[in-house]
Amino acid sequence: MTDPRNQIERALDRALAFATATKRPPLLCEAVHHAVFAGGARVRPRLCLAVAAACGNRNPTASMAAATAIELLHCASLVHDDLPCFDDADLRRGKPSVHAAFGEPIAVLVGDALIVLAFETIARECATSPDRIAPLIATIGRSVGMPHGIVAGQAFESEPEIPLAEYHRTKTAALFVGATASGAIAAESDPQPWMAVGEALGAAYQVADDLRDKMADLAETGKPCRQDAANGRPNAVDAFGVSGTLMQLQTLVEEAVATVPDCPGADSLKALIAGEAKRLVPKRAAQAAA
Amino acid sequence: MTDPRNQIERALDRALAFATATKRPPLLCEAVHHAVFAGGARVRPRLCLAVAAACGNRNPTASMAAATAIELLHCASLVHDDLPCFDDADLRRGKPSVHAAFGEPIAVLVGDALIVLAFETIARECATSPDRIAPLIATIGRSVGMPHGIVAGQAFESEPEIPLAEYHRTKTAALFVGATASGAIAAESDPQPWMAVGEALGAAYQVADDLRDKMADLAETGKPCRQDAANGRPNAVDAFGVSGTLMQLQTLVEEAVATVPDCPGADSLKALIAGEAKRLVPKRAAQAAA
Repeated sequence: MTDPRNQIERALDRALAFATATKRPPLLCEAVHHAVFAGGARVRPRLCLAVAAACGNRNPTASMAAATAIELLHCASLVHDDLPCFDDADLRRGKPSVHAAFGEPIAVLVGDALIVLAFETIARECATSPDRIAPLIATIGRSVGMPHGIVAGQAFESEPEIPLAEYHRTKTAALFVGATASGAIAAESDPQPWMAVGEALGAAYQVADDLRDKMADLAETGKPCRQDAANGRPNAVDAFGVSGTLMQLQTLVEEAVATVPDCPGADSLKALIAGEAKRLVPKRAAQAAA
Repeated sequence: MTDPRNQIERALDRALAFATATKRPPLLCEAVHHAVFAGGARVRPRLCLAVAAACGNRNPTASMAAATAIELLHCASLVHDDLPCFDDADLRRGKPSVHAAFGEPIAVLVGDALIVLAFETIARECATSPDRIAPLIATIGRSVGMPHGIVAGQAFESEPEIPLAEYHRTKTAALFVGATASGAIAAESDPQPWMAVGEALGAAYQVADDLRDKMADLAETGKPCRQDAANGRPNAVDAFGVSGTLMQLQTLVEEAVATVPDCPGADSLKALIAGEAKRLVPKRAAQAAA
């Protein structure tokens, strides 16, 4: 499989063009571009496309629509997460966060606009396969809304006690489940067996994020580290130490690989997951474990 | 036509049940209910249903789905508009605004959750008429997103100069256009001629809102008045005086009535518009003009 990153960038460009072609309102248009084209790794849309490819890629338009919507929703969640009332992060991927660059009102609106645009994109791009629209929206909506998705996950931070497993499942893993399940749906396959793959990958990603927060530096991640401690959030490294957390990460990646269902492209997907997992471990943690 | 308000409340209740039945996360669930069941007049969903009825009401499920989504999106916009970084309003319809009652993080998330829920509702409720989903999402998405919808409208407040006509068209009239056009789409009619009706009604509503901001008191509107002046926003009463603004309102309502296209229920819709218009004029303005 060729690297789909360029295709994803083009699809995002196309989606944004529908929102920003008139350049009105100017600041909002600029801020939406800033939020979406900020050097993200596009992990979730690549996963969505990889699952669709593994399932036989029956409907490339629908899978690209799903992948695009998922990345737009991910970007929306980052913009709102960075707001002063949440993480109050002035940097994101080494650049000013949206509210730092454009002000808080525009940052709230960028998130709102990207959520709307995500659903518009699914509806528009699936015009030739309208039977894909409702299941894609149900699955992707579930992974970002409440009670199962990112918004619910983020809201647990406002509870007097954070239920750790539910918090990580909703805030981080849910969109990975959305990515794998919607990739299968787009390819006209059963999404059910793919949910466990997304769940394990999402959990692995969360553990890797905890490691990065503790051990990476700004140059490596492009965002401020040690944010969990600063924001009073739980971190796996505190509970299990570096080597324990690395073992957890390995177990979760193996689980993700093991749960990949039989399908035409199972082997290349498994290789992709294993390769991606290595990229997630911060250098200092890998050195510490070596 | 019977008053559809109870049906709208039941449909909103049903939509929210999908998001809040598990009562997780507890605060977010409570806040979402607070935002949606706060004694709103349900003007936009009633308009949507009235247009669908005037068009022959071919698909009551689809029109109720559209009406519900529009009200959820309207509620989302109110919650975000009240945030400290926008209007900083502690009261809404005589009760604490969402951020005043539940904190700013939860208020941001309530808005996000309601936007997601709106699109999920359309996809789910139109399961038996899937060909309605894409056009409804396109039309409703346009009325809330960018560059034509509420989000764009709100973003004009961050521009160095506010383009008045474009600001009102996007921030207020767009969702009225969404309501009339989606009512027609749900009823399998051509939405095109209905857009002018929504445009005129939305403009009328904006003018009425300006009057209320200047002339009504808290007891009448349930929210702080004189907010336009406090927030440096333009207000028609400053430009045209009370009687000039009332004349403008009357002209716009007449325009809305005149643009209602030929359809089975045109007469009862025209009567409804005329009745609704009277309700919009604050008592003091009506007395001043008498």
